Amino acid sequence: MKKTVSMLFVFFVLLNCGELTRKPNERSENTSSENPKEAQVNEFAIVIHGGAGTILKENLSDEKEAEYRAKLEEAIRVGYTILEEGGTSLDAVEKTINVLEDSPLFNAGKGAVFTNAETNELDASIMDGSNLNAGASAGTKTVKNPINLARKIMENSPHVMMAGDGAETYAKEQGLELVSPEYFYVENRMQSLKRVKEKDAQKESDNASAFYDATIKDSKFGTVGCVALDKNGNLAAGTSTGGMTNKRYGRIGDVPIIGAGNYANNATCAISGTGWGEFFIRATVAHDISALIEYKGVSLKEAANEVIQKKVPALGGDGGIIAVDKYGNMEMNFNTAGMYRAAMNDKGELVIGIFKE
Amino acid sequence: MKKTVSMLFVFFVLLNCGELTRKPNERSENTSSENPKEAQVNEFAIVIHGGAGTILKENLSDEKEAEYRAKLEEAIRVGYTILEEGGTSLDAVEKTINVLEDSPLFNAGKGAVFTNAETNELDASIMDGSNLNAGASAGTKTVKNPINLARKIMENSPHVMMAGDGAETYAKEQGLELVSPEYFYVENRMQSLKRVKEKDAQKESDNASAFYDATIKDSKFGTVGCVALDKNGNLAAGTSTGGMTNKRYGRIGDVPIIGAGNYANNATCAISGTGWGEFFIRATVAHDISALIEYKGVSLKEAANEVIQKKVPALGGDGGIIAVDKYGNMEMNFNTAGMYRAAMNDKGELVIGIFKE
Repeated sequence: MKKTVSMLFVFFVLLNCGELTRKPNERSENTSSENPKEAQVNEFAIVIHGGAGTILKENLSDEKEAEYRAKLEEAIRVGYTILEEGGTSLDAVEKTINVLEDSPLFNAGKGAVFTNAETNELDASIMDGSNLNAGASAGTKTVKNPINLARKIMENSPHVMMAGDGAETYAKEQGLELVSPEYFYVENRMQSLKRVKEKDAQKESDNASAFYDATIKDSKFGTVGCVALDKNGNLAAGTSTGGMTNKRYGRIGDVPIIGAGNYANNATCAISGTGWGEFFIRATVAHDISALIEYKGVSLKEAANEVIQKKVPALGGDGGIIAVDKYGNMEMNFNTAGMYRAAMNDKGELVIGIFKE
Repeated sequence: MKKTVSMLFVFFVLLNCGELTRKPNERSENTSSENPKEAQVNEFAIVIHGGAGTILKENLSDEKEAEYRAKLEEAIRVGYTILEEGGTSLDAVEKTINVLEDSPLFNAGKGAVFTNAETNELDASIMDGSNLNAGASAGTKTVKNPINLARKIMENSPHVMMAGDGAETYAKEQGLELVSPEYFYVENRMQSLKRVKEKDAQKESDNASAFYDATIKDSKFGTVGCVALDKNGNLAAGTSTGGMTNKRYGRIGDVPIIGAGNYANNATCAISGTGWGEFFIRATVAHDISALIEYKGVSLKEAANEVIQKKVPALGGDGGIIAVDKYGNMEMNFNTAGMYRAAMNDKGELVIGIFKE
């Protein structure tokens, strides 16, 4: 029954938004909800990111770069195979993110950064574009794969967002794999925390100015995400992170905030963000990109440029997004020096990127 | 139930399609941001709400109704005076909400509902439309006025959102008034918790179906909010709540989610929501109303109707919003039986409402 509701939702929203997404020269393309395949670029597609920031060639050894490229390819091929075999975009997103969460290379799951208290507090969210259902968890310390908890919250609870000990309790009730906090210990993450703490200390304990210091900002962020379009035309988006190195006060960033760091809507697109979370929340980045497409009728690329190249920098923030729209158009857009990323279309063509090209 | 939802959806979307075709004269009227004064309705304005739900005349004694009306008037006059004397919309929003937080009549501050663990865990958020700065706190237990904490987070920290013990620590560092948990004990709130727990138990511990049961849903929600436009053309929005009666698992609703239960942008409007939080998050209610105005050029009333009368019910949710746009147009829109509300324009004309008129 829920599926019927979802399909009705898709059909009528497509019908409805054909009006909105029409540009004069696209009339035949975007209003053909009776035959949307006319405008279809890819029957299915998947895009992933492993964080954006000051990622420069000179700071990355050839070995390290090869490691990142290999892990990005391993992850995206997991989701691609699911989509190619007719699986759901939700499964593709979850399983792809699991690979990234289980790698110490990225600030999510195993590689989560340390808080000021030398703990690891993870956030994640997932959204189903077919029915706008969503799940998010914040500040969990023992859940091995937070994206799995986000999905359980979405599918098995009446809630969208759970935080802290309560979220851990729910994870246990749902039978998710829990690990001891030591599982998340990664030596270079601890070194990053020590460096950031030293630099913060130099700022005469002026938390704000230390936070805004560009020299330490980049070492603080990073996250992973995946967006996918499946053969049934359903979009899904997922994002998972360890948050911000040296975070205090139970800080929650944009990742578990639906509409900020993550959003999916079959009427428009699926988006996952990475970057300076506070600015992504203030700019409601993910929903703003979707709204530009739905109400202004611009393309995914135009919408992403508007928000990532103009609105976020105008506020003083930085970062990037990955996205795929209902037509299978893929987008990887960032205003930082680099973003770990990969994309695959329905022909199996793979693109992997790290630096600005 | 689901069938009804999907049929409603069909109906709403079809209606929707018609309304989306913009009349030529509307565009010039609503997108005249180059010269907003052309369309200025009020130099300053303020709107408040004290929660939406199944509020029926027959369930409210004349004495109780008089109490609510008196408190709504007391609160809105505090903010009105600040605005009339040339104060900021942020001060008007914060001080007005303080009056509502300090009253046991509303589910915020003193009158916060109880969690499943018989604690009170409060959420709040505030946003400054002049710079899109925002602050939010979730799950605090000893902060007397959560809206004040949200403002401290916005103005004195580099973060937007803090949760749990960390947020309490920050509140203490900022010198905010802390109270013992007993301060929040209100007998009829405890009775509500007991009633909800009994009904939940009858549902054979099926949390979801109990949650979706309309007979207990209404006793679970409620919140307070304020939006204001000041003489300098700055918009601000604030929302504060005790959350949901019998909430578990560290559930976070829409109130501290920027773009869902609260949003302000000088380019469009300021919005505060109240209702079934999960659906307000999934529909990114507050930012969606702003985006409809900004990108489609519709009026505040059309945008609010689109989201509250069509999109939220289509998902199966209910509730309402209050809003004021940059022209001083005021809106109080809800799809429930009632919403505690009040509005004052720049002539000092006061409107107070509780039931559907």
